[in-house]
Amino acid sequence: MRLAVVLYSLVLALASADLAQSPVSVPYPDGFRAWTHVKSTVIGPTHKDFARQGGFQHIYANREAMTGYRTRVFPDGAIVVFEWLEMTENAGAFAEGPRRQVDVMVRDSLRFAQSGGWGFQRFVGDSKTDLAPAPTPQQCFACHDRLKKDGLVLSKYRQ
Amino acid sequence: MRLAVVLYSLVLALASADLAQSPVSVPYPDGFRAWTHVKSTVIGPTHKDFARQGGFQHIYANREAMTGYRTRVFPDGAIVVFEWLEMTENAGAFAEGPRRQVDVMVRDSLRFAQSGGWGFQRFVGDSKTDLAPAPTPQQCFACHDRLKKDGLVLSKYRQ
Repeated sequence: MRLAVVLYSLVLALASADLAQSPVSVPYPDGFRAWTHVKSTVIGPTHKDFARQGGFQHIYANREAMTGYRTRVFPDGAIVVFEWLEMTENAGAFAEGPRRQVDVMVRDSLRFAQSGGWGFQRFVGDSKTDLAPAPTPQQCFACHDRLKKDGLVLSKYRQ
Repeated sequence: MRLAVVLYSLVLALASADLAQSPVSVPYPDGFRAWTHVKSTVIGPTHKDFARQGGFQHIYANREAMTGYRTRVFPDGAIVVFEWLEMTENAGAFAEGPRRQVDVMVRDSLRFAQSGGWGFQRFVGDSKTDLAPAPTPQQCFACHDRLKKDGLVLSKYRQ
């Protein structure tokens, strides 16, 4: 009986570990800072969401995603990164602050067939493994799907 | 006598044309939008120089310049671009507007030996040929030289 309990606990522990360590379906976009800079936006101090979202947003695209920005058909392998930074202010001049989060969308028409061919994920701060509890990948997809049908990528490349 | 006047006028015209068409010592940095994005700053609506300078400033570096950002020794061939964009505002959210100007510094230790090994130039708006009357390359150098001795490049790469 004691053995059964031990074995049962072991099974539970393994299952839990497996869940916690399940591979991230959308991996961290290593090296994205060297990809092409698509465009930037800023949420300034007078914006209603400044406390939660204020600062710089930079969009980066890998080579496959740049093909998509040109043609609006994003091939498998395309990765778009939406990087959020806090900001500091000095007399109306804004500088980049610490990283808030890194949003990623990856194109894989088979693997992510249920979400328009795109997989979504948000990484917290500078972490390559900590996933934000919200928005979930499903929530990301729902919003992109609602906002625009054009390949689900909302931005355009600034020449 | 008439011939002499004509010849003299011709010489003057040629000299003037030669001056106007003298090759730009620092060429336009074609393709810089695909180079590495070093960092960004913003001059916001409450800044005293907003009317003249307001908007986004993006810094881009070519491969040689990225070696310099890592080592702080910038090899010949390094090019750093400081791109100025106007901005639009919507309830405290800022978006990129038209291009104001493109500032360029090019490393060539022989050609630009008189200005710390760097050549400077400012191109107006989207033009690849229109040079700003000010700051002159000499003024650019004087200010960079005064602000910092560290390779004359004032920015650091944001990881």
